[in-house]
Amino acid sequence: MKHLLGIEQLSREEIEAILDRAESFAEVGKRDIKKVPTLRGRTIVSLFYESSTRTSSSFELAAKRLSADLVSIKAAGSSVDKGESLKDTVATLSAYEPAAIVIRHPYAGAAQMVAEWSEAAVINAGDGKHEHPSQALLDLFALRRRLDSLEGKKIWIVGDVLHSRVARSNLIAFKAMGAEVTVCGPPTLIPRDIERLGCAVSHSLDELDEADVVYVLRLQRERMKESFIPSIREYVTHFQIDSRRLGPRQILMHPGPVNRGIELSGDAIDSPQSLITEQVASGLMVRMAILYELLAVGGERPAPPVGDESPPPTPIGQPA
Amino acid sequence: MKHLLGIEQLSREEIEAILDRAESFAEVGKRDIKKVPTLRGRTIVSLFYESSTRTSSSFELAAKRLSADLVSIKAAGSSVDKGESLKDTVATLSAYEPAAIVIRHPYAGAAQMVAEWSEAAVINAGDGKHEHPSQALLDLFALRRRLDSLEGKKIWIVGDVLHSRVARSNLIAFKAMGAEVTVCGPPTLIPRDIERLGCAVSHSLDELDEADVVYVLRLQRERMKESFIPSIREYVTHFQIDSRRLGPRQILMHPGPVNRGIELSGDAIDSPQSLITEQVASGLMVRMAILYELLAVGGERPAPPVGDESPPPTPIGQPA
Amino acid sequence: MKHLLGIEQLSREEIEAILDRAESFAEVGKRDIKKVPTLRGRTIVSLFYESSTRTSSSFELAAKRLSADLVSIKAAGSSVDKGESLKDTVATLSAYEPAAIVIRHPYAGAAQMVAEWSEAAVINAGDGKHEHPSQALLDLFALRRRLDSLEGKKIWIVGDVLHSRVARSNLIAFKAMGAEVTVCGPPTLIPRDIERLGCAVSHSLDELDEADVVYVLRLQRERMKESFIPSIREYVTHFQIDSRRLGPRQILMHPGPVNRGIELSGDAIDSPQSLITEQVASGLMVRMAILYELLAVGGERPAPPVGDESPPPTPIGQPA
Repeated sequence: MKHLLGIEQLSREEIEAILDRAESFAEVGKRDIKKVPTLRGRTIVSLFYESSTRTSSSFELAAKRLSADLVSIKAAGSSVDKGESLKDTVATLSAYEPAAIVIRHPYAGAAQMVAEWSEAAVINAGDGKHEHPSQALLDLFALRRRLDSLEGKKIWIVGDVLHSRVARSNLIAFKAMGAEVTVCGPPTLIPRDIERLGCAVSHSLDELDEADVVYVLRLQRERMKESFIPSIREYVTHFQIDSRRLGPRQILMHPGPVNRGIELSGDAIDSPQSLITEQVASGLMVRMAILYELLAVGGERPAPPVGDESPPPTPIGQPA
Repeated sequence: MKHLLGIEQLSREEIEAILDRAESFAEVGKRDIKKVPTLRGRTIVSLFYESSTRTSSSFELAAKRLSADLVSIKAAGSSVDKGESLKDTVATLSAYEPAAIVIRHPYAGAAQMVAEWSEAAVINAGDGKHEHPSQALLDLFALRRRLDSLEGKKIWIVGDVLHSRVARSNLIAFKAMGAEVTVCGPPTLIPRDIERLGCAVSHSLDELDEADVVYVLRLQRERMKESFIPSIREYVTHFQIDSRRLGPRQILMHPGPVNRGIELSGDAIDSPQSLITEQVASGLMVRMAILYELLAVGGERPAPPVGDESPPPTPIGQPA
Repeated sequence: MKHLLGIEQLSREEIEAILDRAESFAEVGKRDIKKVPTLRGRTIVSLFYESSTRTSSSFELAAKRLSADLVSIKAAGSSVDKGESLKDTVATLSAYEPAAIVIRHPYAGAAQMVAEWSEAAVINAGDGKHEHPSQALLDLFALRRRLDSLEGKKIWIVGDVLHSRVARSNLIAFKAMGAEVTVCGPPTLIPRDIERLGCAVSHSLDELDEADVVYVLRLQRERMKESFIPSIREYVTHFQIDSRRLGPRQILMHPGPVNRGIELSGDAIDSPQSLITEQVASGLMVRMAILYELLAVGGERPAPPVGDESPPPTPIGQPA
C-alpha cells in the first residue's frame, strides 16, 4: 500500500490492518506523553483547497504525535490565490521530499493526479464528490468497537447522497466488511446509477426500523447550486432523524459537522444511540494508523524495533 | 486552579503565584535554548474566533517553549465556516485529549461554556466584552517590575470602557492588588453600573494628574455599530493622551494594538513614562506561567524534578 | 553578515559562502532524518503581509529542519487587520527575542525598517518592487549546479521587469557573478533607468539566441492597476517563450508561480532546457543556508562541533 486514494483500492485485509494499528495508537493517546518518534525528521505536507477543521487538524496532530515535521498549506493566503496550477504546486512541494502529501481538493481525481506527479505517499483527504477514505476508516473503527462484526448487518445511509464523498466511501467500506447497505433520500439527492455499487435505494424512512446502523449525511447546502430540495422545512419533515425515529438498538452515526435541527435533531445527537462522539475520537487514532502503515510499514523503511528510539540526527559538519 | 476563565475567580495569592512563576520564566527567555521539556507530548489547542496577533502568537510560542504539541484553529478557513456550533467544535477537539484549550470568542461566557463541555483546562483569551484575564496578569507583571506594590496606588483607566474586556479584567485585577481605580471617558463609553465594581467614574481628564498609572484603552472602532462618539476629532480633543498630559512620575500603559494619533499620540507612546514595550514583553512569560500553573502545578501531574528531563517516549510496538 | 536585506549588500564571497553552505544541506535532505539540531530552542518569526506558498513554506520548513521554534504570522486574521502599524507589530514580536524575522511586505524598504527596529537578524522575503534576495540566491545555486561558472555568460531576463523584485535582485546577483545581463520586454514593462544597473535593454526577442540563460518573469497581473500591455494575446504573441524559441543549449528559468500559456508555454516548462524544477528544489537548501549563515555562523554563537548534538535544555526549577 503506497497511497490511500480511495476505499475502492483496499482489500478487506488492508482495511483490517489499519483498524488494528489504530487500536494500538489508542493506547498512546492515554499516555501522559502522547508521542512516538516513528516519523522523526520526515516531512508531511498538508494541502487543503477546501476549508476543514476536523480532518486537517486531526491529520496534522497525527503527524506531530508521530514526530514528523509538518508543512501546512491552506488555499487562502497561498500562491494558489495567484492561479498556480495544482501540478505546479505539487512540483514545488515535492522539492521538500515529503514522506506524504495529505490533500483535500474540490475536484474528483485530484489525489490520484498528485500521486502520479509526486514520489510521496498521497493520502486523499477528500476529492470532490469522489472519496474520503479516512472518514470511512474511522467510521469502521468506531463501529467495530460497538459491534463485533458488520457481517450481515443492515446499514442505511440517509440524506444528501448525491453531493457526498463520504456516502461513496462508506458504502464501499461497509460492503467490503460484509454489511448490506441501503441509501435513502429524496430522488433528487440520490445519484441515478447508485445501485451499481451494490446497494438498495429507498425514498422514504418508512422502513428505517430494519436498519442496525443509521448513517446520516450532512445536507451540503454550500454545494447546492441548483434547488435540489423544495425547501429545508420539507426536507426536515420527511428526512430528519430525531430520537422518536430511532429504535433502542439502532446505532446513529454522522460524519460531522452536523446541521443541528436539519438532518438531525438535537435530541438524536445526544441520544444513547449516537456514536458521533466516538466517531470523532476515532479520527486521530485512525489517521495516525494510516500514516504509520504508509510510511513506516508500507514504505521502504522498517518500523523501529520495540523499546528503541530511532537514532539521533548527526549534526551537519562545517563545509569550508 | 483548574481553568483561567476570569480574574474574578482568582484570589490575590493565586495572582501572585502566577506572577512569581512568570518571573522564573524570564530567565528561560534569556538563554540560548529558550525551551523546557515540561509539557512534552501534551497537546494544547488554540481556538481563535476573532483575529489576533499578539495574544494568539504569544500563547502559541509559550506552548512551544514548554515543548507541547499545538493545534491551532482560526475561525476563517475552518469548518466553523460551515456553521458548526461551538459545542460541536469543542467535542471534536476534545477527542484529541488536549491538556488545555485556549479560546477567544466574540460572546461573553464562551470560555465558561467550553469549560463545562471539555475536560481540558480552559484559558479565556478574551470572551466578548467580558474578560481577558491573561492581559490583566501581564499588565500586573509589567507594573510590578516598575513599582514595588500597587497598594494604595491610583490607577486611571481611560477611554472606551464600554466595549473593553480589558477594562473589566484590569479593573478587577488592580483592585485585587490594593489599588484605587477611576474609569474615565465620555458618558456614552462608560457602562452605566460600573461603580458596582468598586471604582470611581470621571468624564474628563481634568484630574488626571492624581493618577500614578494611566491605562489607556484602544478605541474599538470595529465594535462600534452605533455612533458612540460625535467624531474621532472630538474624541481626540477631549480624551487623547499625549506627552503634555503626562506628569514625569506617571506610568503610561496600553494593551495594544494602539491606534496611533487617536487614543494615544506618537510622542506619548515613545515617552519615558510608557510601559507599553514592557507590557508586550511580559505576555510570553506570563502565558508560559499560566500554562505551567494550570498543567504542571495545578493539574494532577507533578512538575518535573530539577535537573532532570522527562523520560523519552516508548515507541509503539508492532501489533499484528 | 547580520541581515539579508538585499543582494546589493552582498560581496561575491558572501554569496559563494551561502551557496557552499547550501550544498552541504543538500546532503541532509537525502537522509531519512532530515533534521539538524543547530537552532534548537531559538525562535524564528515568519511575518508575511502578502500571500505566498513557496517562499513562506520553504523558510518555515528550513527553520523546522534546523530545529528552531517558529511563529508564523499571516496578515489576514491577525491584528494587522486592526490597523496596527508595522512598527508596533515588530515591537510586539521582538518581545519574543527571536533569532530572526523573515518578512514579506508590499512596500519597498520594509525589511530595512524592521532591521532598524529589531535586534533580530532580518531576512527580506520580498519588499514591494525592491528586492527578493533569497530567490536570487536559489537561482544562482540551481544555475551553478548546471553550469560551472557564470563568468562571461549572457543572461536575458524577459518580461514584466517593471513590477518585479525578482528581476532587480537577479540582475544584481548575475552581474556580481560575472554574467552579462540583458533585460527584455515591452517598453511599458521596463523601468526607465534600468541601464544604470549595468544591463542592456531589448524590446524584442529577435536576438534571444545569443542568451546562455533565458530567465522568464511572471506577468504580475495582480500588481497591474493600469493597462501596461495592450492585451494578454498581444503579449503572448511577442514575448511568450515556447520550445521553438529555445535553442538546445539554452537554459530556461522562471521564479514561479508560472502563468502557463502566458509568459511560458506548457511545452517550454516541460522541456529539457527547463531548470524550473531545480530552482524550486534549491529553495529549501538555500534558505537553510541563509538561516545557518546568519544565526549559527554570522551570529555570536558558534556552529555546533561535528558529531555532537547541542546540549539538552535544563528544565526550569521550582520557584516558590
